Amino acid sequence: MVEIHHQVGVKASARDVYNALTTLDGLSGWWTRATGGTDVGEQLQFHFGEYGVTMRVEQAQPFDKVVWHCDIEQGEWKDTGVCFDIVETEDQVLINFSHIRWHACTEMYAHCSTKWAVFMLSLRDYLETGKGRPFPNDIQVNHDDT
Amino acid sequence: MVEIHHQVGVKASARDVYNALTTLDGLSGWWTRATGGTDVGEQLQFHFGEYGVTMRVEQAQPFDKVVWHCDIEQGEWKDTGVCFDIVETEDQVLINFSHIRWHACTEMYAHCSTKWAVFMLSLRDYLETGKGRPFPNDIQVNHDDT
Repeated sequence: MVEIHHQVGVKASARDVYNALTTLDGLSGWWTRATGGTDVGEQLQFHFGEYGVTMRVEQAQPFDKVVWHCDIEQGEWKDTGVCFDIVETEDQVLINFSHIRWHACTEMYAHCSTKWAVFMLSLRDYLETGKGRPFPNDIQVNHDDT
Repeated sequence: MVEIHHQVGVKASARDVYNALTTLDGLSGWWTRATGGTDVGEQLQFHFGEYGVTMRVEQAQPFDKVVWHCDIEQGEWKDTGVCFDIVETEDQVLINFSHIRWHACTEMYAHCSTKWAVFMLSLRDYLETGKGRPFPNDIQVNHDDT
């Protein structure tokens, strides 16, 4: 099992968290510019300058859970899954994030683990202040980050 | 294998990175107040308000690698290991961080994964600007964080 897991707590409603994960505006506000379809079975494209990644929406269960399958031809993210579980607690909403089915524990895996933490904090800021730090305004973790 | 891995790149020398990991001043500058001994076989205490964690220095290999063993009686960190690998590249030094030997993939594990990313970025800022964000001035990831 090679998986990335993160958890952040947010002062927002489960509905707002869900919307940030299932609308193009929301996704573009904390991760990176998103295009495509957000319904189950549709493909989302996420744009990082000249690079891109395609995710097929596997589950979108209001206001509980969102799951994507990475539909790319090659690379370490191929056939990995990205899951967001939304859990309401007494005083906050927890976002339990996981990026599963990595094939190996590589440098890319470690890099992405750090970057996902950065984007989870961007998501929290987006929800709590209206302003995230999506790519390319995210915190870079390597000096040659693209 | 339940492990946390992170990678950050820093504009600093391998020696400076190593010193930040093997001196009380360094450790207190990016993680939290540290006391105890920093030589191999000695115990380091890290203080988080009323909580604390004890790490036994298992390896300290200038300017390459630092490994700790978590010497606590109980809790999810018991007998886990924390490793810092320092890798010089052409234009930066990479810090490959891992927290290994977790017994299970728990919420605590996810929480700590996010927090370690926060502290790795604190370590980078400490090295590059002289000012980190050690506990309790780190970025909180849950609203009830201590």
